[in-house]
Formats: sequence, structure tokens, C-alpha cells
Amino acid sequence: MDPIAEVKMYEDSSDLLPLLVGGPGPDTLQNCKEIFTKATASVLETETDLTQAFRYADEQGDQEYRDQLAKFLTTEYNDTVKSSELMVTAGATQGLYFLASLFFNKHKVAFVEDPTYYAAHTMLQCDLQMKVVPVPTDANGIDTNVLDKLLSENRPKSFTVTLEQPFWAMIYVISVFNNPAGWCYSPERCGELVRIARQHDVLVVAEDIYNLVYYGESSPKRLLAYDKLDHDYMGNVVSNCTFSKILAPGLRLGWLEAPERVLRVLKNSSVSWSGGSLNHYASKLAAAAMKLGLQQKHVQTVRQIYKNRMMLMCETLQKSLPPGATFTQPQGGFFVWVKLPEAVDALQLLRMTAKKYKINFLPGFCTSPSGGFKNYVRLSISFCNQATLAQGLDAFCSALRDFIPTDTE
Amino acid sequence: MDPIAEVKMYEDSSDLLPLLVGGPGPDTLQNCKEIFTKATASVLETETDLTQAFRYADEQGDQEYRDQLAKFLTTEYNDTVKSSELMVTAGATQGLYFLASLFFNKHKVAFVEDPTYYAAHTMLQCDLQMKVVPVPTDANGIDTNVLDKLLSENRPKSFTVTLEQPFWAMIYVISVFNNPAGWCYSPERCGELVRIARQHDVLVVAEDIYNLVYYGESSPKRLLAYDKLDHDYMGNVVSNCTFSKILAPGLRLGWLEAPERVLRVLKNSSVSWSGGSLNHYASKLAAAAMKLGLQQKHVQTVRQIYKNRMMLMCETLQKSLPPGATFTQPQGGFFVWVKLPEAVDALQLLRMTAKKYKINFLPGFCTSPSGGFKNYVRLSISFCNQATLAQGLDAFCSALRDFIPTDTE
Repeated sequence: MDPIAEVKMYEDSSDLLPLLVGGPGPDTLQNCKEIFTKATASVLETETDLTQAFRYADEQGDQEYRDQLAKFLTTEYNDTVKSSELMVTAGATQGLYFLASLFFNKHKVAFVEDPTYYAAHTMLQCDLQMKVVPVPTDANGIDTNVLDKLLSENRPKSFTVTLEQPFWAMIYVISVFNNPAGWCYSPERCGELVRIARQHDVLVVAEDIYNLVYYGESSPKRLLAYDKLDHDYMGNVVSNCTFSKILAPGLRLGWLEAPERVLRVLKNSSVSWSGGSLNHYASKLAAAAMKLGLQQKHVQTVRQIYKNRMMLMCETLQKSLPPGATFTQPQGGFFVWVKLPEAVDALQLLRMTAKKYKINFLPGFCTSPSGGFKNYVRLSISFCNQATLAQGLDAFCSALRDFIPTDTE
Repeated sequence: MDPIAEVKMYEDSSDLLPLLVGGPGPDTLQNCKEIFTKATASVLETETDLTQAFRYADEQGDQEYRDQLAKFLTTEYNDTVKSSELMVTAGATQGLYFLASLFFNKHKVAFVEDPTYYAAHTMLQCDLQMKVVPVPTDANGIDTNVLDKLLSENRPKSFTVTLEQPFWAMIYVISVFNNPAGWCYSPERCGELVRIARQHDVLVVAEDIYNLVYYGESSPKRLLAYDKLDHDYMGNVVSNCTFSKILAPGLRLGWLEAPERVLRVLKNSSVSWSGGSLNHYASKLAAAAMKLGLQQKHVQTVRQIYKNRMMLMCETLQKSLPPGATFTQPQGGFFVWVKLPEAVDALQLLRMTAKKYKINFLPGFCTSPSGGFKNYVRLSISFCNQATLAQGLDAFCSALRDFIPTDTE
């Protein structure tokens, strides 16, 4: 069986305790009943023209949605977000697919972090048939020296900037609470990445998915803010975001924060002309949830829950990981990235663990377009509640001890 | 100004009476308040596990949604529809974009009717950079003799059928209540189209958008049913459908009915892996609306309303069109396709009409990938209520009399 298909099989097995999935579980979704009851009533009972919520809507997204979102993000980011620079999406997956298919597409180049989000690099490579170039990373983010060199090597001689196509390639990064690695880019690295993107005429798609799931005082600065520092701002960074982690993935709702020259291409596309807003009714519900303050309250609640789980996971791993296994405690997001001894094949570990201990997790090879990180494991705190998570972690550590006999045993 | 951009400008002008837009207006959306109030209550109060509606969901779509939809369609089509052959989409635009981008993409060939849906041929050509080949049509549908010849000429020598790519090209058609032309394919033409598609290893994407908006006794047979007649059925036809015309476009919800070999590719894509169901919460609401019988009742109601409007439009045109202008009364759908005298440029007519008579409509050139149909106009019954529509039609006929002086004047 194809290794990716095998991982999907373990992911879909309902009899396994899920340390793989990166999405909210029953505990952090239980407030949705109240939120959506109130938000629906607000949309259906207080709109002046009721049928507006059910029509085709503006390509860029409903004005009320963008206004409420701009306000919410300005507070959360502690940085100005303009509603004119926001566009509705049907979630971050759709946002990335939309950007990549409209601007780049078959045979164009996508530079990605190695490791990166597993379904993103395969989507760019297999679904959209782009040329995916992995770029090494360290604890401060993507290696900008290597990236600079790779950009010079890959730029087509024939490329010239036009209004319709200001970029010849994209760089896909998760600079805040990285998936899978958990780290945040250093401010220096952010500045350097933006500088390089400008110099080489490439678009950076920054997936700012986990930014509001922070465990410190506030959200680390998104990459786009570094781009905006420049007074000759043209815009080389798009921030691709979603309500999936902070509200409900089933809603399939997100947004892009993007410069005018990118928004223009997206709004003028025929796919936008045809369907209008990419998820209109859902955006009306989210707008109501923000207007009523329910979204703000919810994100505070789940942040605390996730923080407690993250502490539990890191404390347990600290105590129980066998020698030679290491990790760094993340300051936000859903994932702990565990490095196991070089000789360990995490896919084999998954097979054994699923069978004997009834848990799943993400083996590192999935995250690597270069086929590396075979001895890494991504563990997620997002789905299981505290008690189930503790049980899953015990099982994981037991499995590791089985699989990697230590000298003392 | 680019002529397409100019048409969009007239489409977006809120001070024009809209005979352009092909979507429900306030009158046929007013029941949505009741429908969505009840459907939301049903989802939020009666689901056994409430959080299911808010999670990431199965790539193919929620089981309840597909089961309810299969039942609804089996009744409406008077033909068996299996829930295993349905897949959720975020509307027909997204369905087409998804199919075209995953199976074909840049430089691959899309054969389209001439005329066809305006935003579809530009989406395939401009957004996805496919090679769009127009195929002539007559009152029985696409010209299958010409199509057969064009397929033979365009097939790449190197193409061989594989599991991942069973098709080298797509044919995009609207065989029932065509947009813009209003006609239905004859049964012979449907059979011939399916035979040719099989013989040439191409996929037919049949947009079955208006099938349930019929004004006769029942819905004309969808193209997929002709494909299924064959006992060596492999599947060369996908039926791409939406709730936009029969419920609410703002919901951004639709479905594909497709053969297993097509569904497999869609479900196994990374974009599906990443986001799961393309519009999950909306699909739960629609499932509830079908379960409660609200969708069934609604489609009957709006069918009668649209039928009355269509009769009004055709009677008015019959009486008031100047000599040399002709049309055929459609048996379903939203559009009347009016042929004006050869010398008339419908874009110029639109400019004058918008300015002097404050209405808009679709000039035929938008629908034609070959740049033809300049003297055609598409009028829509979908948005305006009976009284406004009557007013708009009077204005349109007055404008025509201004623009095309008859001999007797």
C-alpha cells in the first residue's frame, strides 16, 4: 500500500485514539450550539432585507462580514486590519487552492518549508502539478540564504512583471506556530523573507491558521505586518486564514488578507464572477457571531483549553520520552514535533502503535517534500479532551519504550 | 473599457432593473427564513452528536446529506440516484472548477457549446488556462458530427488511459434548459454525445442546474441517465448540480453525481484530504430541509412562480418584439434567448438601454467563445417579481423600437 494512503487509513480509523488530526474535537465545539443558535436568530430576525443572506453576494465577500472581521482581527493582532484588504474564502485549503490555481498552476514553482503542512505540498504538487522545491528550515524559520539561492536558480529568463501576473513563483510558509514544527519565525527572519520576496518578484502565501491559538500574552506578528513596514509597499505577502481552528471547521469559512494587486486578480477571475462570495451564508453567521461578541468569547475559552492540553502533553513527554527523543515546547498551535532517534522509522512505529496501543499520529515523512524527517512524529492536542489525551500520551510513550529499547532495560 | 468588464459594470449597477442575473430574487427567497429557521433547529436540537455538524467531515460529503439528496432526486428525476454516486460541492461553479483543475488544467482541451454559459468558458480559458474549443449547436443541442471531427483532430498521440487520468479532454454542456439558449438536447443527440465521449476517452461535464425548474409535467432526462443505459457502463458523464436555483445561492452548496472512477480521483485529491467536505454545515442544513419536506415544497412553489414569469415574458415578447427579432419559448429554466436582426450590436443596445431605460441584460457575445452571437440577447426571468418584470420587458421592447426603427415608422 502507498504510504500516504496507509496514513490516511489510520487517520480514518474510528477505533484509534486520534493524536493525528489537527482540528477541534467535541469538547471545544460544544459551545457551537449556543453560538449558532444566536447567530442564526440574529441573521434571520434582524437583517433589514432578509433575502440578502441567501443571494449571490459580492466576490470579495459581504461588507458586514469584512467589517466585523477587520474589527475582530485588529483587536486580536493589536495591529490595524482593513476590511478593504480582506476577502472571504471557503477555508484556508480553498484559499490556498484558489491562489495557487489562479496565479501559478501547472509547472510553475512553489517553494515550501521542509517540513511543512502535509496536505499543502501534495496539493501543490499532485493536484495542481506545480514544481515543488523544498527549502530547509531551522528553529528561526525557513533558511533565507538557501531560499535566495534557489530563487535565483529557478527564475525563468523570460519573466516580466505585469498587472495580471506580478509573480513568477510562490513561497508557502507557516511562520507562526508552524505545522508541524510548532516554532515561530524570528523577527529578523520575517524581515529577510519579505525582502527576498520583493527582490525576486514572488508571492509569499503565509498560512496564519494558528495565530490566535497562542499560549503567551498575545499573538506573534503575522508576516504580512513585516511587508507593510515598508513605505514602498506593493504587497508580496498574503495572509491565508480560517475559522476552522478558532470556531468550527464544518463551517468551511476563512479569509485572505491581501494587497490590492492580489485581490484584483482574485475578484476579477471568472470563478468569482460566476459564484460570487465563496461562502456567503456562513459568512453572515460568522459576522453575527462576531457582532454579538460570541466569537471573541469562544476564542478565549478554547485558547485556555488548548493551553492546558499543551502543558499536559509537554509535561508528559518531558517525563516519559525515552532517551534520544527530543522536542521543543511550542508557544501556541496544536502540534508537538518529536524527534526520535535516527534509526526509528515513524511509519513502522505508527503501524505497531495503531495495532497494539490503538492510537494514531502523523509520521514525519508526510510533512517532507524531500522525503526526510522519517524519524519524526507530529502529535496533536486539538481533538481529545484532557483525560483522553493523557491516556493517549501514556499509550504513545509505552509504545516508544516497546519500540526503542533503552540500554537500561 | 474591456467589453466584459463593461458588462460586469452594468450587472453590478444597483440602479438598473436586472434582466441579466440568473439567480433567485427577493420574492423566491422569502420562504428561506422559515426553511432555515426550521432546518437550523433540526440540526442543532435533534442531532445525536451535536458537534458532528461543526467538524471536518467526510470528503465525499455527509452521509445524511447524500442519503436525503438521493431520495429527493430519485423522486424529482423519476430515475434512481444512488447516494454512493453523489459528492458534496460548494455549488456548481466550485464543482466545475474542481473537476477541471484536478483532471485537466493548463493547456488541456475543453470543448464547449457555442453559445454557452458566459462565466464557464472564460473560467476554463482565463482562470485555468485550458484550450477552449467552441462547437456549434442547433435546436437539438451540440453538433455531434463536428464534435466527433474536432475530437479526432485534437487527441494527443501520446495519450493512454490510466486510473488517475482516464480522460484527455472535457466537454462542457448544458443539455437541459440550456443557458443561454433555453433548449433541451433531443434524446438522439444525448445518445450520440455519450457514444462519442466513450469512443474518444473524454469526460462530459453536464451542468444540470435548471433541471428541476421545469414548466411541463416533469424534468427532462439528464445526460448521465443516457450513459447509464449501457451495460458496459464505465462512466463518461458527470452531472454538476446546485441548490442555488432551487433554494438559495448564498448557501454555496451543490453536488456532483459521478461515476466511481471520477469520484475516486476527487476524493483522493489532497485538497479533499485537507479540507474534507467542501461545505459541511450548509449540507447539514440542506439535509434537514429535505428531511422535513421543506425543500420539496419550496421547489414546487418557485417552479410555479417562475413558470408564470416565463409565460409573461414570452407573451410580452410575442406581442411587442419588432419585426426581425425572434425567440423560442423554453420549457424550463431562467432564460429567453432573443435573436435580433443581424445588424444589431447587443452591446451597443445594452449601453443605450441602461442609460435611457434603466435595465440591464446579457449581450450575446459574452456567451460565445468564438466571438459570435453579437446580435443576441439573453433575458432572465429569475430575479424580478411579476410586476417589475412586466415593467422591465416594456422598457426592453421600447428600447428595441428606438434602436431598430421599423419600415413603418
